[in-house]
Amino acid sequence: MTIQIPRGTQDILPGEVEKWQWIEETAKKICQLYQYQEIRTPIFEQTELFQRGVGDTTDIVQKEMYSFQDRGGRDLTLRPEGTAAIVRSFTENKMFGLPNQPVKLYYLGPMFRYERPQSGRYRQFVQFGVEALGSMDPVIDAEVIALAMEFYRSLGLKRLKLVINSLGDRESRTAHRNALIQHFQPRINEFCSDCQERLDKNPLRILDCKKDREHELMKSAPSILDFLNDESSTYFKQVQQYLNAMDIEFVVDPTLVRGLDYYNHTAFEIMSEAEGFGAITTLCGGGRYNGLVKEMGGPDTPGIGFALSIERLIQALEAEAVPMEKNKQINAYIIALGEKAKDYSVVLLENLRRNGFSVERDYMNRKLKAQFKAAERLGAKYAVIIGDDELSSGVATVKKLDTGEQKEIALENLKEELSD
Amino acid sequence: MTIQIPRGTQDILPGEVEKWQWIEETAKKICQLYQYQEIRTPIFEQTELFQRGVGDTTDIVQKEMYSFQDRGGRDLTLRPEGTAAIVRSFTENKMFGLPNQPVKLYYLGPMFRYERPQSGRYRQFVQFGVEALGSMDPVIDAEVIALAMEFYRSLGLKRLKLVINSLGDRESRTAHRNALIQHFQPRINEFCSDCQERLDKNPLRILDCKKDREHELMKSAPSILDFLNDESSTYFKQVQQYLNAMDIEFVVDPTLVRGLDYYNHTAFEIMSEAEGFGAITTLCGGGRYNGLVKEMGGPDTPGIGFALSIERLIQALEAEAVPMEKNKQINAYIIALGEKAKDYSVVLLENLRRNGFSVERDYMNRKLKAQFKAAERLGAKYAVIIGDDELSSGVATVKKLDTGEQKEIALENLKEELSD
Repeated sequence: MTIQIPRGTQDILPGEVEKWQWIEETAKKICQLYQYQEIRTPIFEQTELFQRGVGDTTDIVQKEMYSFQDRGGRDLTLRPEGTAAIVRSFTENKMFGLPNQPVKLYYLGPMFRYERPQSGRYRQFVQFGVEALGSMDPVIDAEVIALAMEFYRSLGLKRLKLVINSLGDRESRTAHRNALIQHFQPRINEFCSDCQERLDKNPLRILDCKKDREHELMKSAPSILDFLNDESSTYFKQVQQYLNAMDIEFVVDPTLVRGLDYYNHTAFEIMSEAEGFGAITTLCGGGRYNGLVKEMGGPDTPGIGFALSIERLIQALEAEAVPMEKNKQINAYIIALGEKAKDYSVVLLENLRRNGFSVERDYMNRKLKAQFKAAERLGAKYAVIIGDDELSSGVATVKKLDTGEQKEIALENLKEELSD
Repeated sequence: MTIQIPRGTQDILPGEVEKWQWIEETAKKICQLYQYQEIRTPIFEQTELFQRGVGDTTDIVQKEMYSFQDRGGRDLTLRPEGTAAIVRSFTENKMFGLPNQPVKLYYLGPMFRYERPQSGRYRQFVQFGVEALGSMDPVIDAEVIALAMEFYRSLGLKRLKLVINSLGDRESRTAHRNALIQHFQPRINEFCSDCQERLDKNPLRILDCKKDREHELMKSAPSILDFLNDESSTYFKQVQQYLNAMDIEFVVDPTLVRGLDYYNHTAFEIMSEAEGFGAITTLCGGGRYNGLVKEMGGPDTPGIGFALSIERLIQALEAEAVPMEKNKQINAYIIALGEKAKDYSVVLLENLRRNGFSVERDYMNRKLKAQFKAAERLGAKYAVIIGDDELSSGVATVKKLDTGEQKEIALENLKEELSD
């Protein structure tokens, strides 16, 4: 009886894994250009971290977390997202005291949510995200957005749509909140029970409701943009100016909201407009969270970041038919004929590899023809054929596999020949 | 109140993470040279996988696993090691049917064991490992060992000791097992209760006992090497010949054993002999496991691999005082003086980044002097200074930070200048 992979997870196998490597290398390269540095936090954290950092009332915390007790009775949870742990680490490691401010970080790794698996949605998925902590300059908001856009662009995505909004500061949000309550209260009994609960707790989340999205009060709901105070309004304008200056197209969508109290000012999403990409088109979501670090017990520190899923990105690349990196070519496949040549090939192989050549040979006692086929399958540039006779004369036959061109090369010149 | 990182885990922060990136890039490069391809399996697997693949009687399974039930009642476990999941994936994905055989895989990622944390030992740690499935050629044994040695060598480790042994095939092991029982049985009551249990179940594991290691019967215990049948003996000799041919030094240690039934033939460990490295010197352990794939429900397929911990490796690099990669230098730090220049710097920064330059600027409204300091801290090669006046004449001042050399450059020539 064989044991299967857990439901909602996937193996990433050779042939597929090269796409991931290419995407991840690109992410790392872009982060180097924008001067974001990698941080790695543990796969699990204390459960309370997410209850506080993601929010007790969210679906993630209420329904989707992988929580368990370790053998010492600690309540732990596999991380469902990246920001809470970064904020924990920022505070615990006193990164607010570092000379380089803001602290610009990125992360890349698996996250876990117990959701119903469907196309492109897994219970273990990989997120790439950045966080900039410590600056309240609108340049940073524009930079974070620019980084995400440049990441997608450099991978080859073209059909992207950037949507931005401002959630304002605390004062603006309180004014908007009161307006929302006034707007919905008289007819709240026409809404679902969730929305009825949300009215007092967090009326902003009513706008996110999937059940009541068609209710006429939704469309006429007061827009946050009408409640921004001067400071918030100026901040939002500056972000837009910088995006314009950087030639980054966007649309403002006042219905783009975030339900949690510590989100404020800039919010953004990047969608794929590729045909056939499906109903959920959001590739990336991000925004400011100036209240979060303090909420989590650290000093009052502004922050902004985004997160995106690599699974969703690969779907978008496929929808746009972007060619993705395949297997890397190898330098040579060594074919040995005869016992002495076989023994020698082991040494030759090791020698070439130590000198930076990617080379392969047969380990299955295959016939000559099958070895040539293997060389082609691996995308070898050259086949190097050594027989016992050639070996005693110190030469090998080198065949260029694409042209079929073939010549004898002295063994001591082999490295030069393969370098071409 | 702040929430702390879970006990036994660590954050890897900028300044430290570059070591990990360097080590991992090296691992990937070496695997490309030796033609091992990456595979990624989930962070958790069904608990039964490890009970069967690692072994019900091992400390790992009995005491150290992070096991839990998901919201659907599935018994899951955070992976404590890499091989069981690779074998599961090999079988589930029918990789035994691929044209390229053996299937040569590597993995690199976090593993989890609930152990007492101590210096260099974490409950979440990162393993790099390779597995070659499908070949029973001793060349593959030598290659797997050579890959591990070349990995360490290319990172700069010098004080390495390679120890090898053969556990023989089933016939050889049965003969050895019987000899061990005969050896220990008459005086087994002088041994600990664990050893008494092991006598019938798995007498080989008595040799691993930490409590009874000084007992006189330990030293005189029959050696597996005296029980190898002709085939096993020949196989072991060939592995040694190939290692010699590749100029890889080793010592044969017949006490190097593996307690589980499906391990056979080649076993090896690589130790650090660096002074002050501590009591546990093993960096890497590996060997053949021809019985494992079948045991796990797949077709009878030979296999060999190794695993090593990156945490332990970093300790060894530190013990040998090997210089490890630090922060990468950045191309330039942009210093803007005046409002127009600041706005322009946002565009310039984005433009340079899109063209592959790693550049940074200030986001904290710092004074000129503080900005120069920031540029030096980041290791910027150049500072680019733009004032409102210079901007209107289309020039910038470029200062080479190591020499102090300074000149005016037309903005349209800036990229060329920074490319030097």
